[in-house]
Amino acid sequence: MIIYVEEKADPKQLETLKEWLDDIGVEVHSLAGKNGTILGLLGDTHKVDVEMIQGLDFVRKVVQVKEPYKSSNRTFHPDDTVLEIGNAKLGGGHFAAIAGPCSVESIEQICDIAKAVKEAGANMLRGGAFKPRTSPYSFQGLRKKGIELLLHAKQITGMPIVSEIMDIGNIAAFEHVDVIQIGARNMQNFELLKEIGRTDKVILLKRGLANTLKEFLMSAEYIMASGNEKVILCERGIRTFETQTRNTFDVSAIPLLKKMSHLPVIVDPSHASGISELVRPLALAAVAAGADGIMVEVHNDPEHALCDGPQSIKPDAFKSLMDDIKKVREVLF
Amino acid sequence: MIIYVEEKADPKQLETLKEWLDDIGVEVHSLAGKNGTILGLLGDTHKVDVEMIQGLDFVRKVVQVKEPYKSSNRTFHPDDTVLEIGNAKLGGGHFAAIAGPCSVESIEQICDIAKAVKEAGANMLRGGAFKPRTSPYSFQGLRKKGIELLLHAKQITGMPIVSEIMDIGNIAAFEHVDVIQIGARNMQNFELLKEIGRTDKVILLKRGLANTLKEFLMSAEYIMASGNEKVILCERGIRTFETQTRNTFDVSAIPLLKKMSHLPVIVDPSHASGISELVRPLALAAVAAGADGIMVEVHNDPEHALCDGPQSIKPDAFKSLMDDIKKVREVLF
Amino acid sequence: MIIYVEEKADPKQLETLKEWLDDIGVEVHSLAGKNGTILGLLGDTHKVDVEMIQGLDFVRKVVQVKEPYKSSNRTFHPDDTVLEIGNAKLGGGHFAAIAGPCSVESIEQICDIAKAVKEAGANMLRGGAFKPRTSPYSFQGLRKKGIELLLHAKQITGMPIVSEIMDIGNIAAFEHVDVIQIGARNMQNFELLKEIGRTDKVILLKRGLANTLKEFLMSAEYIMASGNEKVILCERGIRTFETQTRNTFDVSAIPLLKKMSHLPVIVDPSHASGISELVRPLALAAVAAGADGIMVEVHNDPEHALCDGPQSIKPDAFKSLMDDIKKVREVLF
Amino acid sequence: MIIYVEEKADPKQLETLKEWLDDIGVEVHSLAGKNGTILGLLGDTHKVDVEMIQGLDFVRKVVQVKEPYKSSNRTFHPDDTVLEIGNAKLGGGHFAAIAGPCSVESIEQICDIAKAVKEAGANMLRGGAFKPRTSPYSFQGLRKKGIELLLHAKQITGMPIVSEIMDIGNIAAFEHVDVIQIGARNMQNFELLKEIGRTDKVILLKRGLANTLKEFLMSAEYIMASGNEKVILCERGIRTFETQTRNTFDVSAIPLLKKMSHLPVIVDPSHASGISELVRPLALAAVAAGADGIMVEVHNDPEHALCDGPQSIKPDAFKSLMDDIKKVREVLF
Repeated sequence: MIIYVEEKADPKQLETLKEWLDDIGVEVHSLAGKNGTILGLLGDTHKVDVEMIQGLDFVRKVVQVKEPYKSSNRTFHPDDTVLEIGNAKLGGGHFAAIAGPCSVESIEQICDIAKAVKEAGANMLRGGAFKPRTSPYSFQGLRKKGIELLLHAKQITGMPIVSEIMDIGNIAAFEHVDVIQIGARNMQNFELLKEIGRTDKVILLKRGLANTLKEFLMSAEYIMASGNEKVILCERGIRTFETQTRNTFDVSAIPLLKKMSHLPVIVDPSHASGISELVRPLALAAVAAGADGIMVEVHNDPEHALCDGPQSIKPDAFKSLMDDIKKVREVLF
Repeated sequence: MIIYVEEKADPKQLETLKEWLDDIGVEVHSLAGKNGTILGLLGDTHKVDVEMIQGLDFVRKVVQVKEPYKSSNRTFHPDDTVLEIGNAKLGGGHFAAIAGPCSVESIEQICDIAKAVKEAGANMLRGGAFKPRTSPYSFQGLRKKGIELLLHAKQITGMPIVSEIMDIGNIAAFEHVDVIQIGARNMQNFELLKEIGRTDKVILLKRGLANTLKEFLMSAEYIMASGNEKVILCERGIRTFETQTRNTFDVSAIPLLKKMSHLPVIVDPSHASGISELVRPLALAAVAAGADGIMVEVHNDPEHALCDGPQSIKPDAFKSLMDDIKKVREVLF
Repeated sequence: MIIYVEEKADPKQLETLKEWLDDIGVEVHSLAGKNGTILGLLGDTHKVDVEMIQGLDFVRKVVQVKEPYKSSNRTFHPDDTVLEIGNAKLGGGHFAAIAGPCSVESIEQICDIAKAVKEAGANMLRGGAFKPRTSPYSFQGLRKKGIELLLHAKQITGMPIVSEIMDIGNIAAFEHVDVIQIGARNMQNFELLKEIGRTDKVILLKRGLANTLKEFLMSAEYIMASGNEKVILCERGIRTFETQTRNTFDVSAIPLLKKMSHLPVIVDPSHASGISELVRPLALAAVAAGADGIMVEVHNDPEHALCDGPQSIKPDAFKSLMDDIKKVREVLF
Repeated sequence: MIIYVEEKADPKQLETLKEWLDDIGVEVHSLAGKNGTILGLLGDTHKVDVEMIQGLDFVRKVVQVKEPYKSSNRTFHPDDTVLEIGNAKLGGGHFAAIAGPCSVESIEQICDIAKAVKEAGANMLRGGAFKPRTSPYSFQGLRKKGIELLLHAKQITGMPIVSEIMDIGNIAAFEHVDVIQIGARNMQNFELLKEIGRTDKVILLKRGLANTLKEFLMSAEYIMASGNEKVILCERGIRTFETQTRNTFDVSAIPLLKKMSHLPVIVDPSHASGISELVRPLALAAVAAGADGIMVEVHNDPEHALCDGPQSIKPDAFKSLMDDIKKVREVLF
């Protein structure tokens, strides 16, 4: 870490700062120039509260040379994390395809889709039970009942299941859920992250709509700092000025996250675009860019499916996509 | 609401849609053109699930003419909401100045600042007890102890207090807190919004970093739909490409929110900019644009204040700002 | 086009608007509701000045159902445009690889790189002569001299060349240049677009940093409306809050542009990311998403290349990328 | 400037870099640490090509401590620039109000509005002659004829005039125009900036839709480096995800630009919001935040004004705004 101190800094203040840094075990080297002083900090700078330092009025700039994330940092864990989820594996060359409906609606619906996506090549089943909706007047999901239906589909197909939690109060309902999803809107719900980090579940953490990759890894860090290192990172689009898509899918996040971290990186092309026609090209793009998996919304009965999102695809389109993903992975990896 | 249907739409599907809309009590008028059909929806369209309609593959576009928010909508409540908070009032011409430290640190610190900001013209005291921090390794606040210290300062000064809640599990600690703040990162923590809507506290809802004004009002709607109509809207900057400020303060949000809604609108210039020098110009700008109040970070002892944010100002700067706000309000309102 | 008129609209004003629309040959259908009137416009609505209509104070909303771009619109030209550029082809299944240095520096440099990229599989040579630099104190390119050096490399290798124009005053220097590039910062330099549309050169139009896909196609429309239909669209990243990459590469733009328009769509992964390590994954992602070509910065001598951008790759990395692109295209298209 | 060099850097490469920096007269101080070396650069670092240094593969990070803009930098010119434009003054406590129609349409229109805005308190007249329009099918302005009409209005009222140039080819038409405007879309049209910098006109430079304040000052620097120091900076909104306003008015830009630079800073609330109702609150906010002037669209005859933008206000609303601006300035400055 480098701290650039204003030339007008009071030597006494500077001394206090140095002592304080010394106290927390950080080595400080000074380089005095005409327009100020550069402090080079060596050692374990994770304990330094950057915002606090920046708050000092004699500090012009703080530059972090080392990344503020630790447990998720590839520098300290060069090997890919490989997660075992039921009979599926994810990371370190193992590709996962998570598919299922936007919302769990009925026992028939979820079981039919579960069988269809399994046959098409999926190895995990997703389904929304607790639904985050912008409007309080929109359908909020079947909630606990939805989880029960998912567990039924799990029993029938043998596929591990993925579902979103929205509040720590509902944790009991997720006892038999294999992967607990933290949605984009909760990426910085720090209390939820801390609590979920005390479970031994695999956590699928979605990137927030307006969060940088560093903040994304800091949220993974919250979970890992609580003791749970089984985290999947999921890129799902960020908010920009472009209105043609619901969000802008940030494909660069894949190679960057894989460089910054050892955690598996998957993508959700359905929510990233909000357009069913884009699911296929975005999924293929993500695979070509090195993603470890995809999570796709698949619905079964378009005729009556008044409740499926505009981003859902049909099982046959999903099967064709899975075939092409296999081909691309074969020639590239 | 207007639904634009593709020319290629199957008449049977179209009929199903019309029946479905009819069932929920919405009147449908058709206007057939060469390139498709326009459906004009009349009546209470709040029940229409817009995303669901947009998901139908024969629908080209859905245009909402009426706003999706209801309880917070000025159309249905032309008069400004006026909130009484302890001996302070907010809204409908009543201006509120909320001031205090970033974090509550000690009994001396919070009491000293409380007295200083009261003298300078504040009529509510703010102080962070539960602190949302990007890093799990940063100071997380004094938590329950912090609320106790705030209550002590309330007793001494008589000022109502404002503090942030991060999880519904801690609600008991806020029993004597006058205004419960929902932070920007929790603006779409829908479970928290629903629960807090069941309390009778005044809720200060901050706009999310990447949320539109419509989404902001939909979050207020969650609280109000649960029964609590005492909501304060707080603009605190949005995330943009500009890096000179921590966030971009969206001053247009003030007149727009006041036009869209009857709820009081305040601003937080400290967090919007992250720069103490900007607190004054941004606060004055907000007042000139019609804000009903400001929330400002004030610290007392810059010498030892290693823990104050770079956006905090001193009591004398706050006093000078309050004097100028009074002058501007006198000539404009 | 649909115009939603406020209920309070003066019938006289409404009549004037209808007459005015009638005069420009647009058919108007009215649908009166309780909260206003919906005007459905049929016929050639391209002549309707949308902003003007939106400016009328009795108009609540204007919704464009048809796209405002015409010549570039796939609806009216279902077949892909195929461009012949020297002995290269682009579009309609023909893939183009444009490679070369950031700036042309010397005869040796450009000729060496030209030979290297040709051997690696490029079929067009790029090189900056007129350089858009943020700072007036930075190197502005060899300008006319740079074009001459490029032409020399063209003669030696037989490859068509691509170079950026920054002002119509320099058009004479581009007489023998095969493809004239309009940079992102000039995407809405409308006078330049009009003038360049009067030439018979192939125009490579880059998307602006903060421009929507619609605006992008409207800029292509400027060139085409002047008579030149030989336009290549190039996605090169948009500006967002994320700072890890120079820009956010919008991979969704590829399938969307190809759906909206018949023009060839290429990408520039070098400038999109500003990071050499990302060139390969982003290029492969773009190819998998359906791009018709790539434009990549390649430099030759990293030891002395003080002037190459941080986004340049070496010829052998480019060759390996071209090999993998071929494989992906073989299995997908 | 600080250059952080990777630990794996080849000592030979490092030596070359140091020599190269030495050659351009920059003093280099090294501070070797365990994880790399910090180079502190002292002296006139304006000549250092930052992008080039960042391109070196052994460089981890370059931090600019000094700002890259020089002529516009307040550090080197502590006093406000005061511009004399006809009988108006701008900057250093002198407030300017520029008003007029979106487009010049006829001799009656421009003269009527000119008289009306002068009476209402404007001291400069604006009017669009060359119009940047997103669509080639929209009205492109009266062009040279429009400038002639403006000059007529200038003669009648004595007010200096402001109009936008879009291409250096039309410079002759601006011979008698007092202030030449560079629009947001041309902010980084570097060739235009260089050429306009060779004139002795006052230049009103608008901030680009997606440009940072640093880039904004670098564009001013282009004009000033060509010899013309009479530059006005104009904030007019930036592009964000919010769709309620056309752009997001960045009110923080006012105090920041005034701190960074000695040039006068004005705002354009009409284009920033695109909504006539927001002109008044945004203008007042800007004044309270310290703006040196405003530029407002005023139209005269709403009945027939099919061509005025949705952001125009009437003369009486402008007069009332000017009165309130005067009051706010009296109590604050």
